[in-house]
Amino acid sequence: MKRNIMLTLRYDGTDYHGWQMQENAITVQEVLTSAAERILSQKVTINGCSRTDSGVHANMFCCNFRTDSDTSSAVLLRGLNALLPDDVAVYDVKDTDMDFHARFDCKGKEYIYKIWNSKCKNPFLRDYALHYPYKLDAEKMNLQAKDFIGTHDFNAFCAAGSTVTDTVRTVHDCSVRRDGDLVTVSVKGDGFLYNMVRIMVGTLLYINSGKIEENSIPDIIKSRDRLRAGITAKAHGLYLNEVYY
Amino acid sequence: MKRNIMLTLRYDGTDYHGWQMQENAITVQEVLTSAAERILSQKVTINGCSRTDSGVHANMFCCNFRTDSDTSSAVLLRGLNALLPDDVAVYDVKDTDMDFHARFDCKGKEYIYKIWNSKCKNPFLRDYALHYPYKLDAEKMNLQAKDFIGTHDFNAFCAAGSTVTDTVRTVHDCSVRRDGDLVTVSVKGDGFLYNMVRIMVGTLLYINSGKIEENSIPDIIKSRDRLRAGITAKAHGLYLNEVYY
Repeated sequence: MKRNIMLTLRYDGTDYHGWQMQENAITVQEVLTSAAERILSQKVTINGCSRTDSGVHANMFCCNFRTDSDTSSAVLLRGLNALLPDDVAVYDVKDTDMDFHARFDCKGKEYIYKIWNSKCKNPFLRDYALHYPYKLDAEKMNLQAKDFIGTHDFNAFCAAGSTVTDTVRTVHDCSVRRDGDLVTVSVKGDGFLYNMVRIMVGTLLYINSGKIEENSIPDIIKSRDRLRAGITAKAHGLYLNEVYY
Repeated sequence: MKRNIMLTLRYDGTDYHGWQMQENAITVQEVLTSAAERILSQKVTINGCSRTDSGVHANMFCCNFRTDSDTSSAVLLRGLNALLPDDVAVYDVKDTDMDFHARFDCKGKEYIYKIWNSKCKNPFLRDYALHYPYKLDAEKMNLQAKDFIGTHDFNAFCAAGSTVTDTVRTVHDCSVRRDGDLVTVSVKGDGFLYNMVRIMVGTLLYINSGKIEENSIPDIIKSRDRLRAGITAKAHGLYLNEVYY
């Protein structure tokens, strides 16, 4: 095992049950592993920077694996893209330090969530943005979003099934901007709990519609009560956008 | 037949064999007609502004039909969007003059053609833009594109199988612009021959790569010879973008 290779990908998660391999369901890790093993003619274990949920997309996703193969990075890049299905693309392959681990060395991530805010659905975004046909005040949502920034116990923004015990995370930035009918929520942080970004977006949408009171995010955080936060916004609007090392 | 109704739609053409009804293949006209007939409980004949090819998209597509139903426009709008598949959306329904015809009264159209110009494929644009992994000089293509402007016999830019006899058309504008890795060709004209925009794009790409000499578009037009123009660029990068009345 004399090499550690880092891959950077982009994928459309629509047809995948997330990143992580599982029985009876196709995942990005599985198609990537099978392509790499075919090229290298050996078993590999690929570490992903994050588990993404079923239907969630990635504009940038990093992973690494160790190998003793001497196949060049350029050959691996071309080979992977030739073997992978069209909804997964590798855009960088490079040798990295032997002790690098895509998940444990990750310093932070940015997620974005896309909302198509128009009475009329957008056929081109049906798998790529939440359709929200009601009035949406992006400026108000942007102001409210600032209350997420900081180091907090985000237990109220963690899916009920999660087994994580330490629910303290740091959100570095959270903003909402409008570009025509497309509204994008962006969240940067050192790490995220299960469904955290989707619950944050659901909460901002509930504040927008009046189902949750304005300025109550600090109280919801303090409560640690999942039931006080908003719904979990649908997966197909969410993108892992950047990964920081 | 006391009303003439105009519909404006947007559709993702990926899964359709174009607009126009045909045997043994699903088309946008067919799904739209069947939804309208279900709502109105009567047969309708929908006139489209244009035939689009298999796989071609529409950001704007206009059509009309006559009916004696008194179903309101608002009910029709909601009903159509409820019944139509997710890749077709109606965004406007209105009563118009009895003699209006979406195709014959069309004064002009704008098509756009999207090119993803990066070594790496883009999973999100696999059905929505041509992947062109080679060097592309958008400024040069933009200058060359100006030679299409004017009233010309575009026979050299018409698919061989076409039965149209008058091949004179007026191109009002043709431009190429780059936004990061996405290059968009835009063409406005009073009307277009079969595959005309796709052959224009294929020709600009051949000039870009040196397969066709720079500044030869006027000569190719003059030749009326399809064989002197470039290839027909793939359908999935093409969008009917606007329709003028």
